[in-house]
Amino acid sequence: MSGFGIFADTEYARRLADVKARMEKAGFDLIICQDPANMCWLTGYDGWSFYVPQCVLVHLEEERPIWFGRAQDAKSARMTTGLPERNIVPFSERLVQQPVEHPYDELADLIRARGWGRARIGVEMDAHYYTARCHAHLVQGLPEARFANNHDLVNWARLIKSDAELALIREAGQICSHAMNHAIGKMRPGVPQNHIVAEIYHAQIMGVPGAGGDYAAICPLMPVGEGTSTPHLTWTDEPLPDNGLAILEIAGVRRRYHAALTRTVHFGKPPKAYLDMAKAIVEGVDAGLELARPSNTCEQVEAAWQAVLRKNGLRKESRVGYPVGLAYPPDWGERTASLRPGDTTELQPGMCFHFMAGVWLDDFGVAISESFVVTERGGERLCNVARELIIID
Amino acid sequence: MSGFGIFADTEYARRLADVKARMEKAGFDLIICQDPANMCWLTGYDGWSFYVPQCVLVHLEEERPIWFGRAQDAKSARMTTGLPERNIVPFSERLVQQPVEHPYDELADLIRARGWGRARIGVEMDAHYYTARCHAHLVQGLPEARFANNHDLVNWARLIKSDAELALIREAGQICSHAMNHAIGKMRPGVPQNHIVAEIYHAQIMGVPGAGGDYAAICPLMPVGEGTSTPHLTWTDEPLPDNGLAILEIAGVRRRYHAALTRTVHFGKPPKAYLDMAKAIVEGVDAGLELARPSNTCEQVEAAWQAVLRKNGLRKESRVGYPVGLAYPPDWGERTASLRPGDTTELQPGMCFHFMAGVWLDDFGVAISESFVVTERGGERLCNVARELIIID
Repeated sequence: MSGFGIFADTEYARRLADVKARMEKAGFDLIICQDPANMCWLTGYDGWSFYVPQCVLVHLEEERPIWFGRAQDAKSARMTTGLPERNIVPFSERLVQQPVEHPYDELADLIRARGWGRARIGVEMDAHYYTARCHAHLVQGLPEARFANNHDLVNWARLIKSDAELALIREAGQICSHAMNHAIGKMRPGVPQNHIVAEIYHAQIMGVPGAGGDYAAICPLMPVGEGTSTPHLTWTDEPLPDNGLAILEIAGVRRRYHAALTRTVHFGKPPKAYLDMAKAIVEGVDAGLELARPSNTCEQVEAAWQAVLRKNGLRKESRVGYPVGLAYPPDWGERTASLRPGDTTELQPGMCFHFMAGVWLDDFGVAISESFVVTERGGERLCNVARELIIID
Repeated sequence: MSGFGIFADTEYARRLADVKARMEKAGFDLIICQDPANMCWLTGYDGWSFYVPQCVLVHLEEERPIWFGRAQDAKSARMTTGLPERNIVPFSERLVQQPVEHPYDELADLIRARGWGRARIGVEMDAHYYTARCHAHLVQGLPEARFANNHDLVNWARLIKSDAELALIREAGQICSHAMNHAIGKMRPGVPQNHIVAEIYHAQIMGVPGAGGDYAAICPLMPVGEGTSTPHLTWTDEPLPDNGLAILEIAGVRRRYHAALTRTVHFGKPPKAYLDMAKAIVEGVDAGLELARPSNTCEQVEAAWQAVLRKNGLRKESRVGYPVGLAYPPDWGERTASLRPGDTTELQPGMCFHFMAGVWLDDFGVAISESFVVTERGGERLCNVARELIIID
């Protein structure tokens, strides 16, 4: 472990150079990154402090990024990044959740103090924690600056994973496979739903030999019965049914890097319609992964999937995948490319996606997803769990 | 379980009436609530879908709230709320994470279609997921509306808990005590940190007899050694030390209601300075809880705590507490009152706080916090775990 986060200093330097090149091209002097994954990717900063305003600044003329955050978290920045002391700038504790003043008043002060008050500033307008109020205080505090949406510039820079990142994502895939298989092994009619989720969490955090687990950006999702017709319901204390469906969507996480997976279980003998749907979904994933190779586009992968669905009389309206990797709550997706019509992003080796192969109908749903890495031979699965409707009878 | 969330219809009706009265007083026709806890409190809506824009609308002249969210989550709204179909309004799937269009373009359409295009609209400018871009699209889409920050109007309405809410929070306290005691029982030098965290998650989700656990708004925090000098570090695979400190900050959660707790463990014989600091912190909490009764203020509780610290040559710069209850990631605090100087909020029975009694020095920290409910007899603890520096030798 180097002083500068969990990767080699050269890797952080390469990331920063890439980001600065993108900034020049987009016409920014300064970008303000509040997405916790962008903060970590740029500096190594890691801690559950993203519920207060904080960010990493990158300026074209400043060699290293600047961490800006709450005073009591500055020590976390000293411990998890290799940034020099002058690049770790705490804001005053009294500004936390104050109705009038705001931490970004002091961020504006900092930017002016560095002589960047007239900079062309790119902000992450749609990052989860960059609130309307963060933006308002910043704009008010920097009347001479020119603000624009940086359109997830750093998220886009994260799209192709390095070998060091892929090594962590592969470990995450192993953790995910282990947790999913463990959960499926525990699922029986009558077992309270929360007991299964407790087992999933335990397995996620224990990890696999040599690779302990980290918290996932999304809690284990386990819709049951009619709940399978919508993807984001969480568990209850109710027992698993004697007859019916349950979907499990979970991730394995290694040092904040995610691999996600979905499987569908049927308790009792499944109706033919469910088996047919599962078969079509698995075939659709195969068709998509076959095309997930360099120079093909995101929409081509989706079209291959959708063609199989259509052939089987099915349809999925929502996009069928998104990039995964370094992530913090509330989402393990990276908010850049999508596997959907109109997305002409060209696939390149080292991109990782969650192929979110699920179909949610009015009264039930089936999902059998895969996380994969783009290779010359097509999409390579990161997890290894039975690819079928799993029957527990 | 009624059709309208987990509480009785009368409770939701009372909440809504209270919110509408606050809206009239503040001069709003319409408020837009994106804080997932506000959405759940107003309607019962529950699901991990807050990573996309979604909200609940309350208009003075509309009897019931309106849920607005992603198409694939509309079924979750049908299943977890009792809202009539016309008050569940999905946005188009193609708008998810699109660079040009945004779901709130359709929200603006909805507001205009209901005849509210010229309304005085209160938005949650600093809610975690109300991004700068959400606000920009809304303002652009409703050029005749008047927008203002509603200053967490619904969060403030949540400050005093009902009996039904308190029943859940007390169960959360039991879950929290159980998980903390279980974790402490497993902590030994040499055990990898993540093994302890796996046990915590398992205990949190299993809950206690009759009350299964739910996910916490913050992951288990477990800074170790020098890491105890900063509060928000998470675990690694490293073994617990033979000699040194570890802090555990966790919550118990029952149906999204939280009780949080912090304890500090020392492996081996602790230096006198640590024991003294722990003693001062426990005494400071006692002094604060003694004053946590109706008609006293938040700042009085803090002053009582700070006086004990001062007497012991210590000082905590950050606020020493915040309200807890219904919460979603990334924070179990409610972003309203704070136990700190200048906060003259009057305490009332049924308010619940996390008394975040921790002191973080340059190279170590000690934290022994309590969650409590305000009663006529002072602050009543919601958890029951040894109140001392816990020594594991």
